[in-house]
Amino acid sequence: LDTEAMAQIRKRLDSLTKPQGSLGQLEEIATRLGGIQGTAQPQITRKAVLLMAGDHGVVAEGVSAFPQEVTPQMVYNFLQGGAAINALARQAGAQVICTDVGVAFPLEPADLMRHRVANGTRNMAMGPALTRQEALQALLVGAEVAEDAIQAGNRLLATGDMGIGNTTPSSAIVAVLTGAPLAEVVGRGTGINDGALAKKREVLGRALAVNKPDPGDALDVLTKVGGLEIAAIAGAVLQAAAARTAIVIDGFISTAAAMIAARLSPLSVSYMFPSHGSVEPGHRKALAFLGFEPMLNLNMRLGEGTGAALSFYLLEASLHILNEMATFADAGVSEKEG
Amino acid sequence: LDTEAMAQIRKRLDSLTKPQGSLGQLEEIATRLGGIQGTAQPQITRKAVLLMAGDHGVVAEGVSAFPQEVTPQMVYNFLQGGAAINALARQAGAQVICTDVGVAFPLEPADLMRHRVANGTRNMAMGPALTRQEALQALLVGAEVAEDAIQAGNRLLATGDMGIGNTTPSSAIVAVLTGAPLAEVVGRGTGINDGALAKKREVLGRALAVNKPDPGDALDVLTKVGGLEIAAIAGAVLQAAAARTAIVIDGFISTAAAMIAARLSPLSVSYMFPSHGSVEPGHRKALAFLGFEPMLNLNMRLGEGTGAALSFYLLEASLHILNEMATFADAGVSEKEG
Repeated sequence: LDTEAMAQIRKRLDSLTKPQGSLGQLEEIATRLGGIQGTAQPQITRKAVLLMAGDHGVVAEGVSAFPQEVTPQMVYNFLQGGAAINALARQAGAQVICTDVGVAFPLEPADLMRHRVANGTRNMAMGPALTRQEALQALLVGAEVAEDAIQAGNRLLATGDMGIGNTTPSSAIVAVLTGAPLAEVVGRGTGINDGALAKKREVLGRALAVNKPDPGDALDVLTKVGGLEIAAIAGAVLQAAAARTAIVIDGFISTAAAMIAARLSPLSVSYMFPSHGSVEPGHRKALAFLGFEPMLNLNMRLGEGTGAALSFYLLEASLHILNEMATFADAGVSEKEG
Repeated sequence: LDTEAMAQIRKRLDSLTKPQGSLGQLEEIATRLGGIQGTAQPQITRKAVLLMAGDHGVVAEGVSAFPQEVTPQMVYNFLQGGAAINALARQAGAQVICTDVGVAFPLEPADLMRHRVANGTRNMAMGPALTRQEALQALLVGAEVAEDAIQAGNRLLATGDMGIGNTTPSSAIVAVLTGAPLAEVVGRGTGINDGALAKKREVLGRALAVNKPDPGDALDVLTKVGGLEIAAIAGAVLQAAAARTAIVIDGFISTAAAMIAARLSPLSVSYMFPSHGSVEPGHRKALAFLGFEPMLNLNMRLGEGTGAALSFYLLEASLHILNEMATFADAGVSEKEG
């Protein structure tokens, strides 16, 4: 990060007509945006949500409330603009870029599948979800999608996910990397009942026992108990950081992916912004792993990038503050005493 | 609230392409907006922040980090558009309506003072801050300002405050109405040091001992340890509720005022929406008194309506969801199993 730009921004923020630091996170966001962009006048022009879709072999174990065909159905819904992320991205003035990284069903036209790495993952309760080659390829897909979005002029990105069953690999990643017991990081996802929740915990226990992912090797974790869209999100985060572009991390699945990115490149965390705190119990642990506090608490649990898209407004607010407020001197307002 | 409209909205939200309830608070906001407006198609057209300004005699005790003349200086800053609330209201497409309810200094032109009830409050450490007549008059000023804003076409309001020293009366109100010990509801306001914080606690202790406000009589609390801008905010909230108009409650000072409103008319709480959680330690207790969880956590402590103005976007988001998303049937997406 550009510490000179950040110092200039802090100085300006302290000169504005408000008690110093009283805008809390908004001040920290403006400062970090300047550090990321390498300027005391950071800008957010074009914005995009990078929505990665993939399927999960583990759904064969009965861990999700929705059938797997919902993944491709929702891809079409995204393309037609009818999903929650479409409504919220339109409100934010952001583009939704939906990428099939590993849906388990054919998509039409076939060009929609040009980034597909595999037709979903394998059942991680029986063995590794991915090969190391597939995991790396999906990381690169994410990086390529992010780079294309940056080349197209986007100065602010967000992550989003679609994949029936994908809270299961996310819980596995969070459990392995944080060391938290499974019971604390497994939730109801799209809304499973008590029986399915018990089943999900049992399946996750088996997946960890069978695969023995190495907590010290993020790529091993991603390969054995991850997912294709999760890998692509991690790749997008790494590429955003490499290209000095801010990226907002959505909810539980995206934060699990961001943890992989953080382990592969600890510096990448400086380019990430948290968004909301999800209902999924593992999300708080995932956020804490990254040192983040969520800005929004709306009891959401949808994914798709919805929490991240809502947060774009807050990042923009930080720049309205930086750019539009009067200083104490200009407005003739007395400063703090003593 | 219109329960028929709310039932229709819930039915529609459950038909949209997302797991039921997965948008959490956004779904509850859309539903309540329909209940408030009495329609299954609630709308937010014009929006306004009702910013009430007033001074506090208790600043003579040394409870604030800023000199009292900052109150009128900031009023001019609001009118010139240079304050934080101006930047955030512009971003939100909202108007800022600033009213002098009791600034301690003259304002020019004199017309700016047309709603002024008194030249600030008296020092509550020595006796009642207001007379019952003044408190009632300030409540009515707030109601009138809110009614004018509603008549002008605003369908969504927010509260805001300006008044050097006004965390002190707010802490007193929260302590008296919640029964919490003073130590738990007194904070650093605009940024006082440890010595001034100890002084502030001591002054509040004296104010409560001298005045003995009756926790069962909100008007008595407002009169003895309240403030003119606090009374006006309470009046604005009551009028918004009477006129079936949603009103977003800003931070600590506004929430203390909303507590007075809630005690005077418990039904008014249904028309209030929380916004952010402030750094002020008493704010959580004040929110809990009203049964609210903050939507935004940004470590802010500025007032002026800044947290409420940021929240306008979230209320609008709830309507984008309600109005723009495809249904399961329309999008051909499979519903939840079992």
